[in-house]
Order: sequence, then structure tokens, then C-alpha cells
Amino acid sequence: MNSAALAIAPEVARDVQAEPDPRGITIERVGIRGLRYPIRVVASDGPQASVAEWELTVELDAARRGTHMSRFLEALERWGTDPFDGARVMSVVDDVRERLEARRADARCSFVLFLQRRAPVSGRASLLGIDCSFEASSEASSHDLRIGVRVPVTTLCPCSKEISEYGAHNQRGYVDIKARVAPSGLLSFEDLVEVAESAGSAPVHPLLKRVDERQVTMQAYDAPAFVEDVVRSATETLCEDPRVLGFVVDAENLESIHDHSAVATVRWERPWTTSSG
Amino acid sequence: MNSAALAIAPEVARDVQAEPDPRGITIERVGIRGLRYPIRVVASDGPQASVAEWELTVELDAARRGTHMSRFLEALERWGTDPFDGARVMSVVDDVRERLEARRADARCSFVLFLQRRAPVSGRASLLGIDCSFEASSEASSHDLRIGVRVPVTTLCPCSKEISEYGAHNQRGYVDIKARVAPSGLLSFEDLVEVAESAGSAPVHPLLKRVDERQVTMQAYDAPAFVEDVVRSATETLCEDPRVLGFVVDAENLESIHDHSAVATVRWERPWTTSSG
Amino acid sequence: MNSAALAIAPEVARDVQAEPDPRGITIERVGIRGLRYPIRVVASDGPQASVAEWELTVELDAARRGTHMSRFLEALERWGTDPFDGARVMSVVDDVRERLEARRADARCSFVLFLQRRAPVSGRASLLGIDCSFEASSEASSHDLRIGVRVPVTTLCPCSKEISEYGAHNQRGYVDIKARVAPSGLLSFEDLVEVAESAGSAPVHPLLKRVDERQVTMQAYDAPAFVEDVVRSATETLCEDPRVLGFVVDAENLESIHDHSAVATVRWERPWTTSSG
Amino acid sequence: MNSAALAIAPEVARDVQAEPDPRGITIERVGIRGLRYPIRVVASDGPQASVAEWELTVELDAARRGTHMSRFLEALERWGTDPFDGARVMSVVDDVRERLEARRADARCSFVLFLQRRAPVSGRASLLGIDCSFEASSEASSHDLRIGVRVPVTTLCPCSKEISEYGAHNQRGYVDIKARVAPSGLLSFEDLVEVAESAGSAPVHPLLKRVDERQVTMQAYDAPAFVEDVVRSATETLCEDPRVLGFVVDAENLESIHDHSAVATVRWERPWTTSSG
Repeated sequence: MNSAALAIAPEVARDVQAEPDPRGITIERVGIRGLRYPIRVVASDGPQASVAEWELTVELDAARRGTHMSRFLEALERWGTDPFDGARVMSVVDDVRERLEARRADARCSFVLFLQRRAPVSGRASLLGIDCSFEASSEASSHDLRIGVRVPVTTLCPCSKEISEYGAHNQRGYVDIKARVAPSGLLSFEDLVEVAESAGSAPVHPLLKRVDERQVTMQAYDAPAFVEDVVRSATETLCEDPRVLGFVVDAENLESIHDHSAVATVRWERPWTTSSG
Repeated sequence: MNSAALAIAPEVARDVQAEPDPRGITIERVGIRGLRYPIRVVASDGPQASVAEWELTVELDAARRGTHMSRFLEALERWGTDPFDGARVMSVVDDVRERLEARRADARCSFVLFLQRRAPVSGRASLLGIDCSFEASSEASSHDLRIGVRVPVTTLCPCSKEISEYGAHNQRGYVDIKARVAPSGLLSFEDLVEVAESAGSAPVHPLLKRVDERQVTMQAYDAPAFVEDVVRSATETLCEDPRVLGFVVDAENLESIHDHSAVATVRWERPWTTSSG
Repeated sequence: MNSAALAIAPEVARDVQAEPDPRGITIERVGIRGLRYPIRVVASDGPQASVAEWELTVELDAARRGTHMSRFLEALERWGTDPFDGARVMSVVDDVRERLEARRADARCSFVLFLQRRAPVSGRASLLGIDCSFEASSEASSHDLRIGVRVPVTTLCPCSKEISEYGAHNQRGYVDIKARVAPSGLLSFEDLVEVAESAGSAPVHPLLKRVDERQVTMQAYDAPAFVEDVVRSATETLCEDPRVLGFVVDAENLESIHDHSAVATVRWERPWTTSSG
Repeated sequence: MNSAALAIAPEVARDVQAEPDPRGITIERVGIRGLRYPIRVVASDGPQASVAEWELTVELDAARRGTHMSRFLEALERWGTDPFDGARVMSVVDDVRERLEARRADARCSFVLFLQRRAPVSGRASLLGIDCSFEASSEASSHDLRIGVRVPVTTLCPCSKEISEYGAHNQRGYVDIKARVAPSGLLSFEDLVEVAESAGSAPVHPLLKRVDERQVTMQAYDAPAFVEDVVRSATETLCEDPRVLGFVVDAENLESIHDHSAVATVRWERPWTTSSG
């Protein structure tokens, strides 16, 4: 059967989404999740191409049955070409809110950025991939923007070092920081990576020669840190940075002596800050 | 080298965790994550054995450097034998709070429960695995308990049905409900599964014969539902149930015509409820 | 519309799966994947209840269009009650092959088993979850059975220890062993876990007190092992065990100084063995 | 302690990896896994930037204790700048084999490529992300190269359509094709995507307006396909393409009426082909 021959054209069929809903229930978020789209992101050494995974949602008024899912894609198509920074993500969310005629819109996108690393002694270069994210909310009178990183670090256990005659268990850990920032703010993903790495026992590198491995082994042994120490250290640094309006920092150690993780989380909001439109 | 021969016995080494921390930063949550442990759970037809994954954390006072991670395991070991319901999970969290001398403790555990299903026409029996969870928080003067389910359903798109001469796209979706309940409450996982399944176009079954497949195919076609419809339908039912003190319901469709999901979320708190110890 | 009132009953509709297929293409495997079902497994200290995830497939003759998916569930329903060991899994696969009238059937199922662990100094007890699996193939004249474990271990880097004045990087690693065994064979999951743990620098434990942590820290420092050492050590042990007809061992270190893994794999078949019906 | 002050310089420490191993066990594969690195890939409309995840391994001679893990990174660093096609991946593997002085080297890398899609009626453009991969093996006298895609499609159940008065269950499925090709071969990822999409009931699109949704709904209803049909259809096409030397095709349906998948797999080697150096 040929679709062109059909008697009931979609133009005359009911627009089911646009129908009223009688239940009087506002839906906090409705939209799409798990959409992969190419992205270019502003990084310190210029724009980087990556693969983003998006969640885009709007609040749906109690009176409407459904949202128009295709408009989220149309928004991404329109905004997809130039490099993204926080301000541009906020513009996307504003655009989504207007296209969907919604009181509020929310966006989250995550992607990998690569940072140039130099091995500490040999100076050999390689690239370390970091999971990064934007999260943004838009209402008529307020905006909210968070940037996030998940940074691998080495952590060496202070207790194990203290109680053992030699050696100390250590492992890979991840420091997750999500920082609330002003849309026009100058805080970069690289800034957050630096905070995270300073909080661990040693940074990790993709490429280490033997002289480098010696260096990071002893560096970690000289700077033992519990997950508690990691989040407190990151907290101290973040609180002192006026560009940070609030944050959540979560440290997770893939414990080398257990098959589970040790974790710690601190959540903080700068007392006098408010989000503003 | 034999550990028995060591001069520095761990008894005399410093207890690093117990040392004071000078930074004055309270840690919201510190503990373990991703720990798998056997569990037995109270279900309508008796206790079920399953495999739980736990996150157990406490608030760490600003004055202490570290928590004692092994005590979380000791708590699980003590409470691990009898079937768990909400009240028992709350007892575990209370116990954790006391063992760790903390102001607050939190627990999350997730596991699969199996529900007996009968195919709708043939009556053939099979077992449907459902991801379930407990989340509990304990402070001296307040307790909070949530139970959760993630329920697979069939959803059939109302728009696709309306605009097409024949057929309608449909797909597997998941309805996630997390409900806040009284620790002594009688709301069961099965109750939440029923809410979720009633909100979709048709339930899913592990075992369907041809007569059953015919039945569920037409059942879904007769009851089209957007993700928006799913969360509103579940919301209506949950609001009317006095055992539910609050909830989050999230519907996610693994869209058959896209490679991303359609999602909707409603969050609700019963206006007059407070959590109580 | 009531399904009972339908003019075309499913009994008289075409059985589409049973129709011939004109393309002449045999399908190596067709069936179900990702099915979760409760399981009880024979372990050294008695049967353990767990949650299995199954893949069940048959070869589909070139002449037939489709297989009957519901029969895989019927097989599991029939065999689901008593504890599983290798022989019972083989019986399930034989049964599947007969129900589906196939030349060959294959099954894989994976689940978590818990082993009782004692901390090395304090003797404190806890349970360590291990990912285990059965893989079985059945043809009229041959059977094939493999059992598998994925065992967490601590590994300490020999190079890092050698080149550093103090300390040595270490991490959690996983040793995956899949061993081909006779269906009537006496090799247990626990036997394979022991092989894997002996090959690492130290075993991991869920519960360790300070005296234990001291012990495992130094034990690992005293027994450094590359992934290469781990797989060779496991290989030596497995080759000497006449119950093992062949195996694959894969060691993966979650490197503490990198954000990627170091891996090594050995594959081996006992020269004179053949699978037999 | 300052590393510059250390008495034992790494230059004079033993090179532990280079030591002989007495066990006489060749290791089939040793190297790195899970390494993320930026990549540019040759696609029909020009090079695309993406994020690759690599596994790079070599065979390790029985006489050597360990491989030199850092050299895998050095190889990627050297080859990382220009766009990759099959021939270039093969050059990387050859280079790895030489750097590590190994008899054999293997590489796998996976990444997302985006294809321009036009909605079938409205013509609206969007980008569909496809998981793609290279797998390559290099020995002195032979090379082997496979390219892979994992393509989302809509599948509509022929049985459900046949036995139901109206409607038919359908769902998202994935068609995985790994094709063995000549390193100089002209088979593209897009070619394989086309094979996969032709084998399903309808392709999926990120962006569909109502007129498009109507079209794909009816297109799928008009072309029902079991997983068995999907793999046979892909098999027919692939066998007829002389650029394809062999393949594995796996179809997996995220069944809308079950919480598990239906799957089918065909494996095929062109009878007269041999891999050649």
C-alpha cells in the first residue's frame, strides 16, 4: 500500500499531543534521553570535537496531553555547529523552552574531552580523556548552569601506610565535581580537573616511562589520602574560588583490597548566591 | 617476611582515621558503594533470596579525619540472615548510625525480585524479574524510607495510531517508581508493580504462546499511551493511596522508531506529611 | 473489542514461524538473550540461590523460517527447581535441543555466588560475591561444557617496586577463567577461584580490620605480579589439573597509575582431549 | 623526598619486564584495554572526529617476562593525527608488532560515527550515531581486518501481525555486522549500515515529524521481519558482495512484549578466501 494513496492524510488527523489532558497533573520533565549527537566544545587550547549524549526536557503544563518530541531535535540541529561553552548551552535551553512554549526547560549533556599530559620526568606527551558535562535549567526569571568532570586519580591509603612496615595499598579513584557557575563565568573544565587532581595522591597518565613510573609511585606514597581527605581538599579549593557558586564533589576509590568502592560526598552552596536570569 | 615478626604491631600504630581533621568540613556521606551481598526479601508469597548491591554511608563530623569502613560490613553481617522488609532496612541504618557514632546514616540497596506471571490466555506460568530497591535515612529525630521498582511495560504510541491507516509503533518501556512510605507501612513491591503495569499499554511477560501474543498485541493497540500518559496515570493512582507519602515516577520508552528514549518524570510529596522518628 | 469475539482465531491463523524459508541459509544461533531467572547452584557448602541471566539458542535449519521462542522459557520452567551443576545445565541444553528439534543447542548463564571469607589475622567473616557462569553446547554426538569465574584480586607492580625507593603501585585486578570440563567433572567454581587468587599478589576481602589490612598490604608487596605473571601462574596450575580439558584465562588490572587496563590472555586446549557425547 | 636525590636511579634498576621467564608459556595477547583516544575516521562525506576506545595487544614470547606497555601509547601518539581507514589501522598494528618485537599484534577500536539522515516525507535532516569498529591482526605473513557496525532498526513481528486482528508488536532492534575485508578494500561503514537497515522492517531516525512517523509506522507494518529474517536478509546481501571476505551478523530485538531479547546469529567465511600479507 502506498502512503501517498491514503485517504486520511496526517494533516487532517487529530494532533493527539496537542489535546487537553483532564487530569490536572503538571509533568516536571518530559523529553528525550540518550540521544547521541556530535558536539564541539570550547577548551583551553581551542574547540574540541566530541560525541555528546543529551537529555533535553521541558515542564509540561497540566492542560496539555503531550509535548512535541521532534522539536528537541530541531533545537539541536539549529545550535549544533559552533563550539559550545556554558553560555551557548544556556542559549540552547532557552531556545528549547521557547520552542516548546514551556515554563521551564532542562538540559544535560556529557562527552569526553582530552587533555594534553606530559609524563612528569620523561616529558613524553599523551592525551587523557575526561568525562565532562553541562547541566542547565532555564525559567523565565532564572537560569542555572553546572559544569562537571569525572577525573581519574591515584589514591594511596594513609592507614595502610601507617600500619604496614612497607608498602601501602593504593588504587585508581574517580573525583566527580559538579560546579554551579554563572553562565558567563570563566571556570573551565580544566580548572576543575586541576582541583580534582590536586586532591588525590597523584595524577594518572596514559603514557609513563620507567622514570615516570618511579616518580608517580613515590609521589603517591608521599601524599596518602583517604576519600575523606580527597573531598575535603577539593572542598577547600572550590569554596575559595568566587567563580564557583555551589558544588557537589564525590570521590570514589576502586579499592585494591576490596571488590567494592570507598566513597565520600560533600555538597555545598555559597550562602549569598542566588541564580538569576 | 612474616607479619608476626614485625616490630611495629598495628595495635600501637596510629589510628589514622580517628585523628582530628583541622579543616572544619563536615562530609555529607562517607562509606561504601557497590558491595554485593546475599539478601532475602519479604515478598507476598514468602521470602525470596536475591543478590543485593549496597551503598551504606554516614555523615562524618567535621572534627574526624576518617570513618571506619569495616563497620559497614559488620553491620551487614549482623543483619544479614533474616528476610528484609522496610522496617528491617531501617533497623540496619539505625544500627550503622550507632556503630559509626554518626548524626545521620543512609542506605540504598537494589536487587531483583521475581513475580509469578500467567500468560493472559494460555495461563502458562513464568517468572518476571523486577529491579527493586530500598533507600533509607536515619537521624536521631527522623527516619525516611523509600521503596522502588523498575517495571518493564509495552507502550503503544497514540499519535502513531491516530495518524496511520494501520499499525502503530510500540516498544518496551520502563516505569521507575520510588515511593516514600512509613517504615511500618504495608505498601509492597508488588503494589508498585501493579501501578506501573496499569499505566502502560500492556504488561510484558517472559512466556507467551501464540494465543497470548495475539491478546497482548491487541490489548496494547486498544490502550495507547505516551510517556506523559504513563506518568500521569501512575501519579493519579499513587496520590490516592494513603500509604504513599511521596514519590518520583519516571517513564522511559525505548522508542522503536528512534535510537533514543522518550522520558517523563513526576515528583510529588503529600502536602501534610512529615517524616518522623 | 473482546478477543473471544474475533473471527480469526489464532488456531487457524498461519503459523508463520513454521513456514519454509526459501533462502537456504542455516542460522547458527537463534533464541533468547538477557533473560533473568532465579537459579539455585550447587556450591561446596550446599545449594545457593542466585539470579541468573540466560542466553539460550538453537541452530535453525535452513528450511525453517523461525524458531519457537516460548519453548526456551518452557525448558527453564521445567528445569528451574533443583540446584544446578554442570550435568544439570547439560540436561537443560539437551532438552532445549529436543524441544526445538534442532541439530545443536547452546546455553550460557551467569550469576553471582558468595564465598565465605575469613580476614587473614582477625578471622572476621564476610561474604565475597563472585561472577560465575556455565556455558554448554549440545549436539547429537558431542557435548561441551565450560564453567567460568571472574575473581577480584590485588596485584602489585614488580617494575614499580623495583625502580622505586619506597612504595609500589598496586590495584584491583580481575582474573577471568573459563575452563572446559567434563559434564560429570568434579571441578568446582571454588577450585577456579583458588587458582585465580593464587595467581595475584593477594586476595581481596569484603571485611578487613586494621590488623588484616596490614597483613594484605605487606603480602601484596612481597608477591608482586604483572598481568603476564598472573596468567602464566594460572596457566601452570590449570594445565596440571586433569579435570581441566581446556581454558581461557584473562587477567585485567584496573591500573592505579593509568585510566586504562593492562591485560593478558592465555588460551589452551589439552592436546589429546575431544568432546564426547 | 625529592626524586632527583635518589641514590638508585631507574636507569640502573633492573628492567623487570625484560627479564626471562622460566615457565615456557607463550601469552596469546598482552597489552592495554579501555584506552580512550581521539580519532578521526574516513567517512563518505569526509573525515569525522570521534572518541575511540582501544584494545592493543601483542603475543608475548615464552622467554620474556613482560611487555612494554608504554609502547602501545607511543604507537597511538605517532599515528594519531591523520584520518583512519582500514589500511591505516593495519599500519598501526604493524607498527605495534615491530615496536614490541612480537610475532603477532592485534588491535580493536570502537567509536561513534554520525550519518546524515533525512526524514522520509518531510525531508528534515538530523544525524544518527552508529557504533563502529575496526579489528585488525598482523603477523609477518598475514593480515586480517574487520570493520563493524551496530545499527538500530525497527522490527515488526510477522507472527503478531498474522495472528492479530489489528496491530502488531514492534520494537527497536540492533543489527551487528562485523565484516572481514581486504585492507585495501573499499567497503565502508555506510555500506554495512545500508545492509543492516535493509534487513529490518524500517530504519530509525533521530528526527521525525508527524507525516514521517505515519510513513515509518506503515512501512514497518508492511515489512514484518523476525530476527531470523533479519540475519538471513543481511547474509544474502553480504555473500553477494565480493568485497566481503567473511562476516558475523547478529540481530537482537529489544522485544516490546518481553523483558528479554530475541537474537539470531549467522557466521560465514567466503570459501576460497585466505588472509594474506
